[in-house]
Amino acid sequence: MHRFFIPKEWILADTVTFTSEPLHQIGYVLRLKPTDRIIVLDNSGWEFEVEITRIGKESAEGKVIKRSPGQGEPSVKIILYQALLKSDKFEMVLQKGVELGVNAFVPCVSERCVTRKESASKMGRWRRIIQEAAEQSERVILPVLHPVTSFEEACRSVTKPALLMWEEEKSLSLKQTLQNPPFKNTAKISLFIGPEGGFPSAEKEFAVRNGIVVASLGHRILRAETAGLAAISAILYEKGEMG
Amino acid sequence: MHRFFIPKEWILADTVTFTSEPLHQIGYVLRLKPTDRIIVLDNSGWEFEVEITRIGKESAEGKVIKRSPGQGEPSVKIILYQALLKSDKFEMVLQKGVELGVNAFVPCVSERCVTRKESASKMGRWRRIIQEAAEQSERVILPVLHPVTSFEEACRSVTKPALLMWEEEKSLSLKQTLQNPPFKNTAKISLFIGPEGGFPSAEKEFAVRNGIVVASLGHRILRAETAGLAAISAILYEKGEMG
Repeated sequence: MHRFFIPKEWILADTVTFTSEPLHQIGYVLRLKPTDRIIVLDNSGWEFEVEITRIGKESAEGKVIKRSPGQGEPSVKIILYQALLKSDKFEMVLQKGVELGVNAFVPCVSERCVTRKESASKMGRWRRIIQEAAEQSERVILPVLHPVTSFEEACRSVTKPALLMWEEEKSLSLKQTLQNPPFKNTAKISLFIGPEGGFPSAEKEFAVRNGIVVASLGHRILRAETAGLAAISAILYEKGEMG
Repeated sequence: MHRFFIPKEWILADTVTFTSEPLHQIGYVLRLKPTDRIIVLDNSGWEFEVEITRIGKESAEGKVIKRSPGQGEPSVKIILYQALLKSDKFEMVLQKGVELGVNAFVPCVSERCVTRKESASKMGRWRRIIQEAAEQSERVILPVLHPVTSFEEACRSVTKPALLMWEEEKSLSLKQTLQNPPFKNTAKISLFIGPEGGFPSAEKEFAVRNGIVVASLGHRILRAETAGLAAISAILYEKGEMG
């Protein structure tokens, strides 16, 4: 069944009213008809199975058939502090990050970032990528996209425990880190991933001074867009969230 | 330092002779000069640090300065049986799979594959993607690309233990599977990943009849190209190969 995140206010008792983009999807793109069923998500963690009852030009309506708690959220919340990457790579990280189970994204500007600017249109495009990936992967909470911030500000304001993956780190492995406190029993992990050229030593040192733990992803040199996905997969696997 | 896989025969005692594509890279693309150093890999597991001594039109030469065992190979060999995907997705799986540490790829044709054909030019392109990713990620063994095979033939001939990730599997998780025999102490794992539409039940059943273990990657529905990368990351993490 097709899945749609909608504003909470669109659900009143057992009636759902659709306008704007979801109406366009239901009526024109997917050409659904009355009696067709969809899943509606109000970002509360619940899933609503809805039967379409009417499709009009200005709005459509549906009736809630069933309400059940969603299964798509991992028990550990991962906040991904991703240094800006070239457009297609960054968008891939957003899409795959949502599929895997990231809870929130904080785009950061690090010294070696090639791309450094955000724009309203880019933020809008990133939000749509996140929403589509969340619907497709059966998430029930829409991951949050925070505004672009500087690496320094991100280090200062990050929620702990926080991890930074660094390709030059040789002693502390991701596994050792995750299997010991404070990462072992935490319900929230902040994860820093660098840009194409990696984090320079000075940024790594700045992170350490701000209480961020630096760990290694192993012997192979991963591209920036691969490192985040590998680290997220490893964290979710460790926490029993990968099957 | 730039890294190049070359045929073993190009290294004679402590002299390396370059022709064809590596010569083009050294002389024209990277514009290296005598006294510049590169890393040469002969697919033996060793790395050779080489100083360029001469660059000509027909060939270039270098002198081996140091020979050391490479660090880039995981202790567990993963053979990825990937159902054919749309071109860009399949190429992404090859590239990221090599970075993460896949040992060999077997492209398979499964019932729901949209793309079903191989061609000599495609195989050549796939080999180049694999080689570039292996050089960039500091692998010392070049992952093997096997010819495209049918899903049935792959199931019959696969090296055990073998795993198939299936989104409809609800009971057996990847973690339970990896932490128990025969996967716990194996040095080789075959991994089946489906096409965009997933494996149909009949294919899953066929795999089971051929002794392949079916496991789940968790509650979120991953795209075909994400599932393989997540499963590879999880296997390498479990085996202590992700840092």
